[in-house]
Order: sequence, then C-alpha cells, then structure tokens
Amino acid sequence: MTEDGEIQQKWSIETNILEDGRHIVPDIIASIKHRLDLYDMDKEDFVGIGMGSPGSVDIAAGTVIGAYNLNWTELQPVKETIERELGIPFAIDNDANVAALGERWKGAGENEDDVIFITLGTGVGGGIVAAGQLLHGAAGCAGEIGHVTVDPNGFECTCGKRGCLETVASATGVVRVARQLSEEYAGPSDLKSRLDDGEDISSKDVFDAAQADDPFALRVVDRVCFFLGLAVGNLGNTLNPTHIVIGGGVSAAGEFLRSRVQTYFEQFTFPQVRNSTHVKLAELGNEAGVIGAASLARQFA
Amino acid sequence: MTEDGEIQQKWSIETNILEDGRHIVPDIIASIKHRLDLYDMDKEDFVGIGMGSPGSVDIAAGTVIGAYNLNWTELQPVKETIERELGIPFAIDNDANVAALGERWKGAGENEDDVIFITLGTGVGGGIVAAGQLLHGAAGCAGEIGHVTVDPNGFECTCGKRGCLETVASATGVVRVARQLSEEYAGPSDLKSRLDDGEDISSKDVFDAAQADDPFALRVVDRVCFFLGLAVGNLGNTLNPTHIVIGGGVSAAGEFLRSRVQTYFEQFTFPQVRNSTHVKLAELGNEAGVIGAASLARQFA
Repeated sequence: MTEDGEIQQKWSIETNILEDGRHIVPDIIASIKHRLDLYDMDKEDFVGIGMGSPGSVDIAAGTVIGAYNLNWTELQPVKETIERELGIPFAIDNDANVAALGERWKGAGENEDDVIFITLGTGVGGGIVAAGQLLHGAAGCAGEIGHVTVDPNGFECTCGKRGCLETVASATGVVRVARQLSEEYAGPSDLKSRLDDGEDISSKDVFDAAQADDPFALRVVDRVCFFLGLAVGNLGNTLNPTHIVIGGGVSAAGEFLRSRVQTYFEQFTFPQVRNSTHVKLAELGNEAGVIGAASLARQFA
Repeated sequence: MTEDGEIQQKWSIETNILEDGRHIVPDIIASIKHRLDLYDMDKEDFVGIGMGSPGSVDIAAGTVIGAYNLNWTELQPVKETIERELGIPFAIDNDANVAALGERWKGAGENEDDVIFITLGTGVGGGIVAAGQLLHGAAGCAGEIGHVTVDPNGFECTCGKRGCLETVASATGVVRVARQLSEEYAGPSDLKSRLDDGEDISSKDVFDAAQADDPFALRVVDRVCFFLGLAVGNLGNTLNPTHIVIGGGVSAAGEFLRSRVQTYFEQFTFPQVRNSTHVKLAELGNEAGVIGAASLARQFA
C-alpha cells in the first residue's frame, strides 16, 4: 500500500496452525521475501509493515497471546521476529482495531476524527477512533464493544459476566435470541418449526426468514436490533462520533438491519447526538483490516 | 495559575444575571483589569485565559448559548469580547469538561492519558480524556454521560428520552428513585414516613438515612448505585480508562457511595477492565473546574 492508501499488491497465504502455530510468522516472512525477490525490491522500498492479529496484542512490545484460532496460546514475539528477518519497521494491533482504522480512513468513516467501528461476526468486536486517534485504554481493552452490558439479567457470556452485546448480536447470539424467543412464540413460523425440529439454524437463516416476512424471525431481528440500538445509542451519547459503522458477517443483512438499529438508536439518544451521529454500514468488508493494518506503518514515514 | 498548575491567585465575584446576563462578561473583564492594576501586571504577563461555562459552548468560536442559570438564552460572544478588552488569548469549554481536565491533571486522575470524570449534581455531566485528549465529538456532546440510557423503560428525562442516568443519579434523580420505591416498600422507615407525610427530602437526606441503616434508604441507594455501576461499567468496557472519577454534590456521600458503585461496576465489566480501570472519588471539589479551565490556556504557551 502507498502512504495514501492505494493498494499496490495483495495476496494471501495459507495459515498453518499446526505445532502451536509456530509456522505462521516464518511463513509470512518467507512469503514477503519471495515477493521482494520477485519484484526486485528491498527493505529500503518500504516505510514499514503493519499487521492485524486476533488475540491479545501488546502493541508496544509487538507480541500476541491467546489467539486461539491460530493456536497461539503462548506469547508470540511477532515484531521482534519480523524486524530481525526483514529489517523493516513493524507495527501491530488487534484485528478489530485495524479494521476500524481501515473503515475510518477509506470506508464509511469518511476519514472523520471521531468514528466507531463495530464488527458483528462469530463474536462482537470494535475499535474507536476519537479526536483522530485509535484508543487503547489502560490495558488495551478500549473498543471491546462486544462486552458492553445491554441486559443486566441476560445470557451468560464467555467473559464471565451476563448480558454482553456479544451474547445477543454475534452470529451465535442471534440464534440464541431465536431459541429463547421461540419458547414464548405461539404463532405460525417456518423458522420456529425448523428450530422445534432440532434443525441447526444460522444467523443468516434468521435474517433471510425475517426479510421473507416470517413473523417470528421479525420478532427475533427486532430484539437483536433493540440491543444493538441501545449499545450504539449509548456509544453515541458517550462519544458523539460522526459515524458509527457496523460491519462483520451479521451486517450482510444490510439496510434491513441498519434501518432497524437506527430506529432504536434514535429512541436511545438525546437530540443533539441523534442529529450529529450517523449509523452506517461498513463499506470495505475484509479489506478494512488490510488497509487499516497497513496504515499502522505510516507512523514510520 | 502557572503553567505547572500552581494557583497564584484565586478570587470570585458576584454573578449578576439581570438583563439577560449581559453584565456577566463585562463584570469579569472589569475584575481582571482591577487585579492587573492592583498588582501592576499587564497582558504580557499571561499566556492566556481559560474559562468553563454552563450551557452549550462552541469551543472554536468561543461562544455560549443556552446557559439558563446565567440567563444566557442568546448567543454570547465571550471570546471575542474578552480578547478585545484584555488583549489576552482566550479559550473556553463547558463546565463538566474543564472539571474533567482539572481532576485528570491535578486530582484523582493522576495525570493519566485515559480518565473519565462524572459529576453528580443537579444534573449529571461528564468529560472524557482519551489518549491524552479531551473529547468533544461531532457536535460537542462527547462526555454527556448523564444522558446514557441505563433503563430503557425508565423515567422521562428533560432531554426527551427515557431512562437517562441523570433521571436516577442526579440529586433530584435520587429523590425520584426514593419516591418510586416508596410505593412498593412496606417495612418501617423513617425516611419513607417523611416522604409519605409530604415532606420535601433531598438526596443528602437519602444518603444520611442510608448511612444510619434506614432499610428503605439503603434500598434506594442500592438502586441508584446499580444504575451508576451499569453506566460506569459500560464506560469501562468501552474506553477502559485508568480512572473513572465521580464528583459533584451527590458524591459527598463518599466511600459509602463509591464502594457500592464499585460492586456493580465489577458485576458489569469483563475481567481485564475490572482489573485495570479504577473507580475513584473526585479530590478537588470546585477547584477542579478552576484548574481545568485555566489549563485550557496552556495551548497558547
């Protein structure tokens, strides 16, 4: 990527998570070396390397721990290894934060100084840009919007507390809400029949059924959007960003989802915030993380 | 105040709100001129002047509107007038924001980069310092913590929506909670008797009764602290500041209040936030606003 955010080359490699994920960083290094050779480029041609990672990222040390999808249960000295092997300055942040940077810079955030990004996927993550800076907080947890409490007596969360946004607005959360509401729903519904028949349904199934006017599915979507609107509204009341951007797999439901979140956002915000903070859909998809991660390297320019 | 935050002189003048508050700024100017003469100082001796104001402050323009306690219903060109009359650079922000700056710099915030200040008074206000910067947001509403929705079906707020933190945690909010809970409370309680007798009670009466073990008052305080803990917890989950500082008149209840907010804060935060974000009492009282306002002038240094 250029310093202006224009992608020059994009490629991907397989992620080999065997042997505690110990091949991942060496494989990335080998791939970059191969590219440099191929195009006859060297380290002087680069300002830096930026990376986004799942798990718990220590941005100062450039290390990652607890990225379970990668089998990284032990501390990984990513920055140290990459800088040693490639001689290019390296910066890293967590995957939701770099996606926030990307959407803020080149996507729905319109490069405003105050932008919040929320990603609704297998979990719910987020990143906050305020007064032009990505926030990290005291222990790197700023932007962990998935663990905002939206229902004090709600579902138990993997984090140990109850009623986190993630328990109702992640892909599994949507299905959890469907299962709960199906117990008290008596009318006709194809979606409810499938649940009652023990079929595995997905978040997409719920939204598809709702968009096809299944009354039970509409009720589930309404409940999910109530909680999303409450969380997004309180982000607005607290930080008054120009844009709150919703991305991730669940947001594939698009305007059908956004408009319903907007309705509750308006209910839960005071007038000045309602009129100055915009709830938008993400525009960059997976590219947000790529662009945002690469943008971390601009600090070395 | 020196640039290091040492107060050199402190005085106050009467606030004359007659005739739409048109005397306030001229009175301030006259008082400053009198002081300058008295100590044989002139504008070159000052880096700048900082001011905190109630109402809606346009920090770029240096104007204030809607400060009803001052009778300022029309736009006041405060910066223009003061700079013209005194020839000293002038900066202004709202009263909760400058109090946040003061508590962050010289009070309970310990000059950390991530500090949130909440003031529980006749209303509930706040200010947020994140990554070292005071946040304003898209329309200057960042930090309006009083309008975070803590109870979707709660009391109506002056802002037009329901269940704002202010409706239950301001001085009048505490009494409102007491009146609501008294309807369903049947046991013995001196405080409830006073309410039932039509006596006017204050927030202080509620906390005094609770500290004297009045069972009904304890229930009211518990409910107020539940909502405060929920709001403060979600500030922690969202921004993970080092310190969340509670000030204002209601916080005169001190550790009795703080410890109860802490209990709910722990219930509503995930472990990393619970362990890295501290709920503290403000330390500076009214001085927070004085120091924070003066600190605005450091931008001219």
